[in-house]
Amino acid sequence: MATNITFHPGAVTLDERAELLGQRGATIWFTGLSASGKSTIATALEQALLHRNLHSFRLDGDNIRFGLNKDLGFDPQSRVENIRRIGEVSLLFASSSSLALTAFISPYAADRDLARSLHAKHSPPLPFIEVFVDAPLAVVEQRDPKGLYAKARAGEIKEFTGISAPYEAPPNPEIHIKTDQVDVKGAVEIVIKYLIDNGIIKA
Amino acid sequence: MATNITFHPGAVTLDERAELLGQRGATIWFTGLSASGKSTIATALEQALLHRNLHSFRLDGDNIRFGLNKDLGFDPQSRVENIRRIGEVSLLFASSSSLALTAFISPYAADRDLARSLHAKHSPPLPFIEVFVDAPLAVVEQRDPKGLYAKARAGEIKEFTGISAPYEAPPNPEIHIKTDQVDVKGAVEIVIKYLIDNGIIKA
Repeated sequence: MATNITFHPGAVTLDERAELLGQRGATIWFTGLSASGKSTIATALEQALLHRNLHSFRLDGDNIRFGLNKDLGFDPQSRVENIRRIGEVSLLFASSSSLALTAFISPYAADRDLARSLHAKHSPPLPFIEVFVDAPLAVVEQRDPKGLYAKARAGEIKEFTGISAPYEAPPNPEIHIKTDQVDVKGAVEIVIKYLIDNGIIKA
Repeated sequence: MATNITFHPGAVTLDERAELLGQRGATIWFTGLSASGKSTIATALEQALLHRNLHSFRLDGDNIRFGLNKDLGFDPQSRVENIRRIGEVSLLFASSSSLALTAFISPYAADRDLARSLHAKHSPPLPFIEVFVDAPLAVVEQRDPKGLYAKARAGEIKEFTGISAPYEAPPNPEIHIKTDQVDVKGAVEIVIKYLIDNGIIKA
C-alpha cells in the first residue's frame, strides 16, 4: 500500500516527474511527403526507445484519424484542426515525461509552427524536435505503396501533397534525414544521437 | 547507440510494451460533483503512482480546457465533444502503457459510457475504471471553494451540475468512494488496492 507516501499539495512538477520516471519528455515531430518513410522510421524509433525502457508513444493516422479526429474531414479547416489537436496531444504526452512521436505529412509550415509554439509556451517549455524526412518526389511516386500518387496524377484524389497541393519543406528542422543517404536504422540512430546529445535521454 | 537492436516490422504490441516498461495501461475515470474531491484525489493518486515509478498522467480542466479543447464552449454539443475527446486521449495514454487519470465532472452516463466503450472496443481491450467520488450535495455546496454553487443558486451560472442540471450517478462504478467515510489518503489506497487486485500494477 501507499501508506509510506507523504502527499504534498498540488501537482508533481516536471522535474520531479522526470526524476521519478528516469526520463524527460519531448515531442519528435516527423514531417515529409506521403511514402517518404515517416511512419516506418517512427515505428522503428519507438521500438528502439522502448527497448531502452523509455516510455514512448507514436501518434499516427491509425490511432488519430479513427479516434480523436474521426469527426474531421479533409477540407482546409479540418486539416488545420487535425494538426492542432495532434500538437496538443503530443504536448500532453511530452508533459507526462513520455517521448511523443508524430508521423503525419503535416505539409504546412504554419501548422507545424503552431505545434512547436505550444511546446515553447508550456511552463516550463518542452522540447519540440522537427524531423524532416526528405525523400525526392520522384522516389516516393515510384514507391507509391498505396497507389495514391497514381490516383492523384489521374485527378482521382484532389489536393494531394506534392502533386496538386504544396509541401512546405521545413527551412530549419532540428533533424534532416535524407532517405537516399540513410536507411531506417541509420535514421533511428541519427534521432537517438540527437536525443542523447541534447540531454533528453541518457546514452 | 541502438546498433544492438534488431528491428522487427510493425508496431510494438501492447504485451511487448507492458513487458519493456514494466507496467500495463489503464484509464481511471473520476466522476462526481464539482468540489467533490475528484481532482484532489486524482492529484494524490498520481503522486502515489509516480512514487512507485509508474508512468501516470492526469487529464483535467487545466490541461484540456485551455489546450486540446479550447475551441469548445459549454453548450450541450460541446460538452459531449469535450468528454468524447477526453475519452479518446485517455485511451491513447492507456494504450501507451500509461495510467491515465481523468478528473472531470462528466455528469452524463451516456458520455462516460462512450469513453468506456472506446476502451472496450480497443484491440486488445484496455481497462476502464470508473471511480465515483460521491460527496453529498449539501457538503460540496457548503465547501464551494470557487463560489460556483452560490452563483448557480443565484442564477448567475446556468445549467450547473447538481443545482440546475442533472448529475447522473454511476449505477455500477468499479470504485465507489464516499467522501464522508474516507479521506484523500484512504481514497488513494482504495484505488491502488483495486489496481493491484486486478493485476494492473504490482503490489
